[in-house]
Amino acid sequence: MTEAWADWVWLNGRLVRGAEAAVSVFDRGFLLGDGLFETLRAVDGRLFRPERHLARLQRGAAYLGLELTAGADELIAALWETLQANHLEDAALRLTVSRGAGPPGLGLAGTGVATSVIAARAFHGYPDHWYDPGATAVLSRVVKNEQSQLCGIKSISWLEHVMARAEAAEKGADEALLRNTRGDLVEGSGTNLFIISGGRILTPDLASGCLPGVTREAVLELGQEMGLEVREESLPSEALAAADEAILTNSLLGAAPLVRVEGQRISSGQPGPITRRLAEGYRALVAREAR
Amino acid sequence: MTEAWADWVWLNGRLVRGAEAAVSVFDRGFLLGDGLFETLRAVDGRLFRPERHLARLQRGAAYLGLELTAGADELIAALWETLQANHLEDAALRLTVSRGAGPPGLGLAGTGVATSVIAARAFHGYPDHWYDPGATAVLSRVVKNEQSQLCGIKSISWLEHVMARAEAAEKGADEALLRNTRGDLVEGSGTNLFIISGGRILTPDLASGCLPGVTREAVLELGQEMGLEVREESLPSEALAAADEAILTNSLLGAAPLVRVEGQRISSGQPGPITRRLAEGYRALVAREAR
Repeated sequence: MTEAWADWVWLNGRLVRGAEAAVSVFDRGFLLGDGLFETLRAVDGRLFRPERHLARLQRGAAYLGLELTAGADELIAALWETLQANHLEDAALRLTVSRGAGPPGLGLAGTGVATSVIAARAFHGYPDHWYDPGATAVLSRVVKNEQSQLCGIKSISWLEHVMARAEAAEKGADEALLRNTRGDLVEGSGTNLFIISGGRILTPDLASGCLPGVTREAVLELGQEMGLEVREESLPSEALAAADEAILTNSLLGAAPLVRVEGQRISSGQPGPITRRLAEGYRALVAREAR
Repeated sequence: MTEAWADWVWLNGRLVRGAEAAVSVFDRGFLLGDGLFETLRAVDGRLFRPERHLARLQRGAAYLGLELTAGADELIAALWETLQANHLEDAALRLTVSRGAGPPGLGLAGTGVATSVIAARAFHGYPDHWYDPGATAVLSRVVKNEQSQLCGIKSISWLEHVMARAEAAEKGADEALLRNTRGDLVEGSGTNLFIISGGRILTPDLASGCLPGVTREAVLELGQEMGLEVREESLPSEALAAADEAILTNSLLGAAPLVRVEGQRISSGQPGPITRRLAEGYRALVAREAR
């Protein structure tokens, strides 16, 4: 992973140098985490289902009463523009929108125009070990509130996920799995989670509090196409110990095997056959559908 | 309330004009809500217990592993400096710190220097009606997770509070009361909550998920000085209907009567005698202790 942002940033419709790309200290994104984001991967200059990312962004904006300044098509065009400005074909893109600057306080009255930012960086995939021998995870102390109205929303009030990721790093794991107030599995700090058990593909349902990931959705589709039983349901953390395979997904990672949780192997501790098929199926889907 | 920030902003140790006070689009405060804030009131150029605000900030920073670039005394000096630069005596101050800019992603590795911002505005108190006839509140849909490790921390991942405040505004109320996953009362979107019942002063305990407010602490002290029984405990929302009085507190508001919740009067719907004594006691305490 190239751990640096590329030089040109799309900021409210203009391309500016990263060093000069700034937002007001009064921006509600900075003051109150009052905004949304999306992360997308570009492969060979093409994006996979960008309209689904934008649809999630729009749903979040509608829920927050945040008026976006550009439509989905314009924002997708801006994603491509940002790639081109940086001469990137294989990249990670981050789109951030906030409610913009406003008067003091929490209230929405008098807030101005939303702030929109697209940043990109060269990206060719997660480090190899995520795919082979596979990723490791810990169970996070972070308790996700499945009753929160913000669960389905990818907001920039993301500190719980930051703290979960820090736990993973402290413990030398790749990812940290969040559980909800009932103790059920929800997702990783930056991934959705799947379990393969008895040939079925299981993933926490949205009522568990997970983010409706675009890659999660693709994996559910692929499982059905493969003729496997696919279920979204509440998954107690004990389900991991009994799982045949486990998978982590996100737009940058694709589908990668989760082989160890809290030091305990998932089944044999090796990437499993269904994981491999789903990962390959996902790559083929991206190659087929990206535009 | 003067609803505009004053011209001079303290940004990482320098005073800059508000229009030029900006942070990088890569600041983790803007990208991930990865930071903390404090709100303080200045009366006659003096601050009430600023060291307690700074202590809370430092506890939050320690928990987040966020390295502050200035000590409490330096930041308190910066608060005064900001007041002076803006020729303000009666003011609201907001101190925001974020983890600063860093490489892409959630991880903390490679993050740079924290960003610190102090903004001020003229402030002479909440609108009169908050004190007389008293404030109104609704019960928010927002469910606060009392199991979250972030409950005691005043982080800038504050979107749930923004959404609760929006609910209050939509319904024409002054404040929205948050409940936790057990259905117990927690706090208002920007206030702590007290109930007076049978001569006792009750407030949600920290295990309920509320913020340990500096004004909350002062009101607890004042209640004890007044010889009243003071209890921090879990408060079911039904406790409001049975309350003799209810109070909202924060550093800008002081202590104000909450007289109506969801359209229902608290007792007579008038500011009560204990509320008045606590509000006066608080004003006297501020006058005595501010420095």
